[in-house]
Amino acid sequence: MFDFRKHFLLDPSVVFLNHGSFGATPIPVFREYQRWQAELEKQPVEFLGRRITALMAESRSILGNYVGTHADNLVYTQNATIALNIIARSLALRPGDEVLATTHEYGAIDRMWRFLAKERGFTYINQPIAMPIASKEKLVEEFWSGVTRNTRVICVSHITSPTAIIFPVEEILRRAREAGILTIMDGAHVPGQIPLHLDSLGADFYAGNLHKWLCAPKGAGFLYARPDAQKLVKPLVVSWGYESETPGSSVFVDHHEWWGTRDMAAFLAVPAAIEFQEQHDWERVREACYQLAKDCQNRICELTGLSPLHSPHGDWFRQMCT
Amino acid sequence: MFDFRKHFLLDPSVVFLNHGSFGATPIPVFREYQRWQAELEKQPVEFLGRRITALMAESRSILGNYVGTHADNLVYTQNATIALNIIARSLALRPGDEVLATTHEYGAIDRMWRFLAKERGFTYINQPIAMPIASKEKLVEEFWSGVTRNTRVICVSHITSPTAIIFPVEEILRRAREAGILTIMDGAHVPGQIPLHLDSLGADFYAGNLHKWLCAPKGAGFLYARPDAQKLVKPLVVSWGYESETPGSSVFVDHHEWWGTRDMAAFLAVPAAIEFQEQHDWERVREACYQLAKDCQNRICELTGLSPLHSPHGDWFRQMCT
Repeated sequence: MFDFRKHFLLDPSVVFLNHGSFGATPIPVFREYQRWQAELEKQPVEFLGRRITALMAESRSILGNYVGTHADNLVYTQNATIALNIIARSLALRPGDEVLATTHEYGAIDRMWRFLAKERGFTYINQPIAMPIASKEKLVEEFWSGVTRNTRVICVSHITSPTAIIFPVEEILRRAREAGILTIMDGAHVPGQIPLHLDSLGADFYAGNLHKWLCAPKGAGFLYARPDAQKLVKPLVVSWGYESETPGSSVFVDHHEWWGTRDMAAFLAVPAAIEFQEQHDWERVREACYQLAKDCQNRICELTGLSPLHSPHGDWFRQMCT
Repeated sequence: MFDFRKHFLLDPSVVFLNHGSFGATPIPVFREYQRWQAELEKQPVEFLGRRITALMAESRSILGNYVGTHADNLVYTQNATIALNIIARSLALRPGDEVLATTHEYGAIDRMWRFLAKERGFTYINQPIAMPIASKEKLVEEFWSGVTRNTRVICVSHITSPTAIIFPVEEILRRAREAGILTIMDGAHVPGQIPLHLDSLGADFYAGNLHKWLCAPKGAGFLYARPDAQKLVKPLVVSWGYESETPGSSVFVDHHEWWGTRDMAAFLAVPAAIEFQEQHDWERVREACYQLAKDCQNRICELTGLSPLHSPHGDWFRQMCT
């Protein structure tokens, strides 16, 4: 079995169980990160003034290949929370409108919707999804019973953060498209954990973290917007990209990626994170981690006499250590 | 004279004239930056989940001492553009309202105001300030003649980016207070270049960069809000800090500093940047740089027969290489 520890900078005296909160970065990826920072310091103006657009486009293109979409449909953000704030702030939601989520969303994103709902007078609804979950079909019906004629936006986690359910988003996205409801997926825990093909998935907007399960350096995430939906997105931080279309960049990238001077090294090191997992047979690592988590769950259930929260026969969702 | 080059990572084959755009980081400050990143990787959850609030408070306290205000009136932002976006987005500006700036503002901030003016229907005015500048009094009168009964906000640079004028902000702030107009200062080029005492200055809001003239790592800036004005500021990125007051933190800090997982190392390395300048007699370095820039200006004037844009007898403003 792959010896994890030698590839990470983690304190060897600590058994590191919580990878989900912030991730951990393999040594070669971390080195690449710090190498970009040193590279910038050699010629700051050449780096941030002249080279950065092409360097970011190249990194975005490799990420696009990894998450199944064209580079122009992606912008790097420091994390999924920021990406979701960009989208939520952009949408023209009014009193009477409803945003439908579940009772399994991430606390920061609940806060974001509550803040905006208060500001603008729309309604944010956390549709109850009962645990334990019996079947995919029941879950979808439970969720969909929260849709009304006022539902304008569905915003759900692709993998839920407090409960680690792989949410049946394909079926929900299909129904939402038919009903003309905008869809926002919180994929904070997805990249590096389950395969992702954004173009096939067909969400209007998708936010992902890369520093969690892909093991990129801290502060690497992305915002995806479907080409037709990009015109709905407004810059959260307006800087030079607004009103100045860069040759070779998409308007979407221009408007949302340049936030003034900041360290872009985490974004530039994302290809190294993708490469690291490819080189280390990450499919097997993932499977081994899953088995470990499952064994642990079984032992807890044995010890406590409690039942697991998921159906042991469904492979479309599973519990994970987050 | 202080030998600059040995303290920086700059390519020795390049004569680095443009420090103003992005700054450059001295080696010990850069090491401190990367040390914090490595420190995080030892125990990501302990670092970002448990230690970060106190570490940030300590860094903010040292910054507060440096810029003349209490730590609780400051939040770190990656740069001044982001800080100004937080403020501009927060203010309830309506059709008929006017935001008054000058023709010497930073392009990204002009774009920000134009974007918001279009969104919300208020008017953004770049009051012309003629060059060359004859006197401080004339400049203030020229600027103030743009104030009308509809002026709600004055947003000017403390040191102008395209023209390097130290703007007579004290007099403008005094008049604005009397007139009940909110004041936002863009101090992107100020920290490390001229002394700053935020409490005495009395602006409602102030944005600064620390990676420029203070030589902190890339992506270090701050937002200041006067205690009475803090209640006007709304979170731009809503995350865990909203609705969850942290013991020992101010609500202002809670609402604006935690933007989800990101690399906070640049913020934590700011005390090292302050210390570096203290240890290297930066007053003298600054004066030497000023003399170099002035000599260069004189030679250009001699060669071209042009006159300088500033009055040679005024010491309240000066040209700088930006």
